[in-house]
Amino acid sequence: MLLKALLPVALCLAGASCQNVSTYVNPSVPTGVPVPGNYTGGLRPQVHFSPPQFFMNDPNGMFVDANGTWHIYYQYNPTGLGAGNQHWGHATSQDLYHWVNQPIALFPPEKSVYVFSGSAVVDVNNTSGFFPDQDNGVVAIFTLARYYDDGSAGPQTQAIAYSHDGGYSFEYYDGNPVIDSTSTQFRDPKVIWVEDHWVAVIAYAQEFSVGIFTSPDLKEWTHASNFSYHGLLGAQYECPNLVKMPVRDESGAVVDEKFVLTLSVQPGAPLGGSITEYFLGDFNGTHFATADAATRLTDFAKDNYAAQFFYGIPEGQNAVNLGWASNWQYAQQVPTGNLEGWRSAMTLPRSNYLTKAPRIGWVMVDEIYDPSPILDTPLDTSTFGNGSVAVDYSAVDSNALYIEANVTGINTTLLTSYSTLNVSFTSPSSGETLRSGFYFGGDTPFFVDRGQIRGFDNVFFTDKFSTADVYSTGTDSLASWTFKAVIDRSIYEVFVDGGIHAATVLFYPTQPLTTVNLRTANLPSGTEVSIAIWSLKSAWAEYENEQGTVVGNVTTSGNSTHQERRHMIYENNFML
Amino acid sequence: MLLKALLPVALCLAGASCQNVSTYVNPSVPTGVPVPGNYTGGLRPQVHFSPPQFFMNDPNGMFVDANGTWHIYYQYNPTGLGAGNQHWGHATSQDLYHWVNQPIALFPPEKSVYVFSGSAVVDVNNTSGFFPDQDNGVVAIFTLARYYDDGSAGPQTQAIAYSHDGGYSFEYYDGNPVIDSTSTQFRDPKVIWVEDHWVAVIAYAQEFSVGIFTSPDLKEWTHASNFSYHGLLGAQYECPNLVKMPVRDESGAVVDEKFVLTLSVQPGAPLGGSITEYFLGDFNGTHFATADAATRLTDFAKDNYAAQFFYGIPEGQNAVNLGWASNWQYAQQVPTGNLEGWRSAMTLPRSNYLTKAPRIGWVMVDEIYDPSPILDTPLDTSTFGNGSVAVDYSAVDSNALYIEANVTGINTTLLTSYSTLNVSFTSPSSGETLRSGFYFGGDTPFFVDRGQIRGFDNVFFTDKFSTADVYSTGTDSLASWTFKAVIDRSIYEVFVDGGIHAATVLFYPTQPLTTVNLRTANLPSGTEVSIAIWSLKSAWAEYENEQGTVVGNVTTSGNSTHQERRHMIYENNFML
Repeated sequence: MLLKALLPVALCLAGASCQNVSTYVNPSVPTGVPVPGNYTGGLRPQVHFSPPQFFMNDPNGMFVDANGTWHIYYQYNPTGLGAGNQHWGHATSQDLYHWVNQPIALFPPEKSVYVFSGSAVVDVNNTSGFFPDQDNGVVAIFTLARYYDDGSAGPQTQAIAYSHDGGYSFEYYDGNPVIDSTSTQFRDPKVIWVEDHWVAVIAYAQEFSVGIFTSPDLKEWTHASNFSYHGLLGAQYECPNLVKMPVRDESGAVVDEKFVLTLSVQPGAPLGGSITEYFLGDFNGTHFATADAATRLTDFAKDNYAAQFFYGIPEGQNAVNLGWASNWQYAQQVPTGNLEGWRSAMTLPRSNYLTKAPRIGWVMVDEIYDPSPILDTPLDTSTFGNGSVAVDYSAVDSNALYIEANVTGINTTLLTSYSTLNVSFTSPSSGETLRSGFYFGGDTPFFVDRGQIRGFDNVFFTDKFSTADVYSTGTDSLASWTFKAVIDRSIYEVFVDGGIHAATVLFYPTQPLTTVNLRTANLPSGTEVSIAIWSLKSAWAEYENEQGTVVGNVTTSGNSTHQERRHMIYENNFML
Repeated sequence: MLLKALLPVALCLAGASCQNVSTYVNPSVPTGVPVPGNYTGGLRPQVHFSPPQFFMNDPNGMFVDANGTWHIYYQYNPTGLGAGNQHWGHATSQDLYHWVNQPIALFPPEKSVYVFSGSAVVDVNNTSGFFPDQDNGVVAIFTLARYYDDGSAGPQTQAIAYSHDGGYSFEYYDGNPVIDSTSTQFRDPKVIWVEDHWVAVIAYAQEFSVGIFTSPDLKEWTHASNFSYHGLLGAQYECPNLVKMPVRDESGAVVDEKFVLTLSVQPGAPLGGSITEYFLGDFNGTHFATADAATRLTDFAKDNYAAQFFYGIPEGQNAVNLGWASNWQYAQQVPTGNLEGWRSAMTLPRSNYLTKAPRIGWVMVDEIYDPSPILDTPLDTSTFGNGSVAVDYSAVDSNALYIEANVTGINTTLLTSYSTLNVSFTSPSSGETLRSGFYFGGDTPFFVDRGQIRGFDNVFFTDKFSTADVYSTGTDSLASWTFKAVIDRSIYEVFVDGGIHAATVLFYPTQPLTTVNLRTANLPSGTEVSIAIWSLKSAWAEYENEQGTVVGNVTTSGNSTHQERRHMIYENNFML
C-alpha cells in the first residue's frame, strides 16, 4: 500500500478543547474513531492484544486509571505493514484480556516528525498545571523523532501531551520539547512518581546509557544521573523502565520492596536481535544502585521486547507488565502481514514481584496475570504419576488453550535424566508439531521447539529455546514444580516454576494446531501430576459484527458521517 | 562398552621417578603410550584437535614451553562416550594445528576420585621446590572430585602434580590437597603468575563466585578476594580464567594492557546450556576490578565452552585460547559417538587482544590464530562488486576449507537492507545446506543457520545464531569489513569483522558438504569484494598408518611389549 502524501492539518483532537497545535494526518488514517479490524484470521491471537490492522511495535503509555481501566498505547503505523509513520494507537481493557480498540491517540505533530515510544502518568495532584479541575488528568511523555527528506535521522527530543478525558485524546503541550537534544539516539522516556517528584529514565541508545531525570511538574526536567554500561550491551539500549515492586518470601508474603530497572537491547542480543534484561536494586530518587553486578533476562526465548510496566498500580501490589511479542529480526516479515493484514501482538499481561529463588537467588517472577476472564471449559483435568493425556481441541472456536501442570512429591534423589514432562501441540492434517518439555533431573532444562512448524522461513527465526530451572535446593525433601501455558493460534507463552522462568514464542503453522499431548515419563514413584487443560474464550469475538469486523468503541454507538466515511476508507483498503 | 572393575594399582608414571603415590588405572586404559585413534571418519575434524577415541570435554593445563611446544590437556573419559571417569588426556603441537597425541597425563589418584579441570604453569624459578635442577618444571593444579558409592558427590578439593619431563608425565604432590574444601561445587583452578606471586581463580560454582587465591610456591594458598554475581549467572559458574592481554588501537599498536576474566556458565545460558562470558578490567594482584558493569560473550553461537588461555605467552603478545567445541546440552548425544567412536573437538586456536570497536566500545578480539600451517591450495581468488563464486571441493581430501572475504569501499549511505554477503555449503547428494551471511545495512546481523543439516535431531540443537556487527561508525567515509572462516567436516567457525565477533557451530550432515557458494548482492557501486577460498591439509593424515590409525607419539619409535599390549587392547575395543 502506497503512503499517500502527508498534508498539514490543523486538527482538534477528538474530545479535547481545540488548540492551535498542528498534527499531520494522512487522509487514510482515521481520526476520532477506531481503526476497524478483522480478528478472525487463523494466525490472529484471540486472548492477546493485536492491532486492528497494519503494524504495531512497542507498548507505550501504559497506565491503569482510578476506575480500574487499563490503557495501552502502542507504536503504530496505520498505513503499512512495517515500521514507519509512527503514531500512538490506543486500547482499553477492564481485565487485561478483553481489549477495546480506541481512536489513535497521538498523531505526528508535523510532517516528518514521528511519535516514538514513551509512557504516561495520571497527574492526580495537577503538578503539571494542565488539570485545575480534575484528578484524572493524563500526561504522556514520549520521543519525537525527526527525519529529513533524504531519509537521514534528525534529533530525538522528549515531548509531552496532556489529556483531559482520561487518556482518550491528547493535546500537545505548547512548550515542547521538554527535554531538548541534538542526538539522533535519545529516546523512550518512562516516567514514574517517586516520593515527591517525577522521575524519567531515557535511553541514550548508542551510548549504552540510561539518563535519569527529575521533574516537579513534567515540564521542567533536570538531569540527575546516568546508568551506563550494565549487562548485555548488544548494539543499542532502548525502552528503559524503572519500577518499584514487592519482594516476597517463599510463602508469598511481602517482606520488602525494591526497584527494577529493565533495558531492552536491540540488535545484538545473545539469541539474536531483541531481548529485555533487568537489574534490581535501590533507587534514592536520583540514582539507581544495583544489588549485584548480575544481568538477568526477562524471557528465555526471543519474542518479548520493549516490555513496559503499568503506571498506577497501588503501592505494595505486584507490578504488571506486557511486552511487544516480536523481534526486530523478523517482525516486519512474519506471514500475518500478507495473509491477514496485521503484524505483531503484545505478550500476555504478567504479574511481577521479586523473590529469592532456590539456589539461583534474586529473580523477577513473571507470572501470567489472572487468566480467569478468558477461561471457558475444562477439556481435561487428570491426576497421575507417569502417564499421558491427549485432547483434540479442533472444536474450540478460539483455537486457544490454557494449560496448568502441578507436579508434587518429587523424590529428587530418584530422578534420572529421562524423568520428563512433555507438552506438544500438533496439526493432524499437516503434521506440524510445537514441542515443549522439562527434564526434571540433571541440568533441568525446560525447552520449547518451534522448528517443526513450517509457515515461516527466515534465517533469524531461531527454532529452539531453553532455560535451566533449578526448582529444588535440597536432595532430601520432596520437591514440587509447576507449569502454566497459553497457546493462542500463533503465540505460545509459558510460565515455568511459578514464573521464575517465562518465554513468549511465536509460531506460524500452515494449518491450525488442534491436538495437545501432555505426557510424563520416568518420574519417581510417589510423584503426582495434576493437570488442567482449558479451552479459552476469544476476547475479540464478542466485538465482531456480522462481517467479522471489530470496530472498537464505536460499535455500540451511532456512527457519525465522518466515522462512516473513515470506515469505508478502511474497508476499501482492508485487503492489502 | 562396559566399564571394567576399577582396581588400585601402585603405579610409576612413565618418565618420572617412582613414588609411593597410588593412581587407579582401569586395565583398558593405557599408561605410558598414547591412545590410538582413527581420524578418517566423515565427521572427524581435520584441522581441529579431537581425542583419539571416546569422550573429551574441557581443555586443561594449557601452556606453551620455552621451545615453543604447545601443550593441551583435556578432560578425558578413556572408557566411554559420555562424561565420567575423568582423566587428563594430553597432546602437543608446534603450530596449534598439528597435534600429537601423548600418553594420558593424569589418572585418578584413587578409586572414585576423578581428575577434574585445571591448569598448568611452568615453574621457571622453582618456586615450588620440585625442580632444583631444571627451569622447565611443570606444575598442574586441578580439582579432585570424589564420588560416593551411591553416586552422590563428595568434596571437590584443589590438588597439584608436578612434571620433571616438561609436562609429559606427572607425579601427585604428597601434600595434597593444596586447597581443601568440603564443598561439592568448588572447582577448575586456573593459575597465572602476577608480578611476584601465583594467582589462582577457582569457581564456587553454585555460589556464582570466583575465589581469587595467592601463593608464593603453588603449595600454600591464601584466599584473597571473591568476584561474585557478575554478568549472566545461569545455574553455575565454571572454568574461570584470568589473563593479561594487550590493548591495541585501530592501527593494531599496543597502547596498554588489561586483564580479562572469563567465566563459563552452565547450564542456563541465554542460548541454552553452556556459554562463556568475559569481563575486562584491572587486577592488582589480589582483586579484579571491572572497567564497567557490562557482560560480553566470547561467541555468538553455543558451541564454545570452558575456553582456557595458554600459560607462557610472552608479555605484550596476544593471548591465545581455545575452548571445548560443544555444549553440555547435547555433547553426550552427538552422532560422532555411535558412528565414529569419539565425541567432542576443541575450537580452533584464537589470538586475543582488547580494543575499542567502532561504537560498541570494549571488545576482546577473537581472531583465528595464523592458519598458514594448514593452508593447502587456493581454490578460488576473485575480486568483484556484486557477484558470486561457486567451488566444488569434493576432491579436497580433508573436506576442509579456509575462506576469507575482504570488503572495501562500502559507501554506507547507499546500503539497503538487501545489501548482503552470503556463504553457504551444500551436499549435492543430500541437499543439506549450511548457511551464513551478513546484512550490511540496517541492523547489521551476521548469521549462521545449521537448520538444513539433518544428521542430528535434538531438542537443544538450536538451528540459528546471529550477532550485530556495527562495522562502521560514520556515514561519510567508505567502510570496510572482513570475514574469515574454517569449515571442517562437522565444525564451522567464523571470525567476523577482524574477530570482533566469532562463533563455533557444530553441524552433522548425513553426507559431506562439498560445494561452497559465496555471493554478494545489492552492494553499492564502488564496493570491492576480494575473496580467497583455500583447501586445507589434514593435520592428522600424516600421522596415520596403513590402517588409518593415528597412534600418537609412538608411531616413529619402537613399541615396548607393554605398549603393544595396550594397543591390542585398544584395537580390540575400537568399535564400540
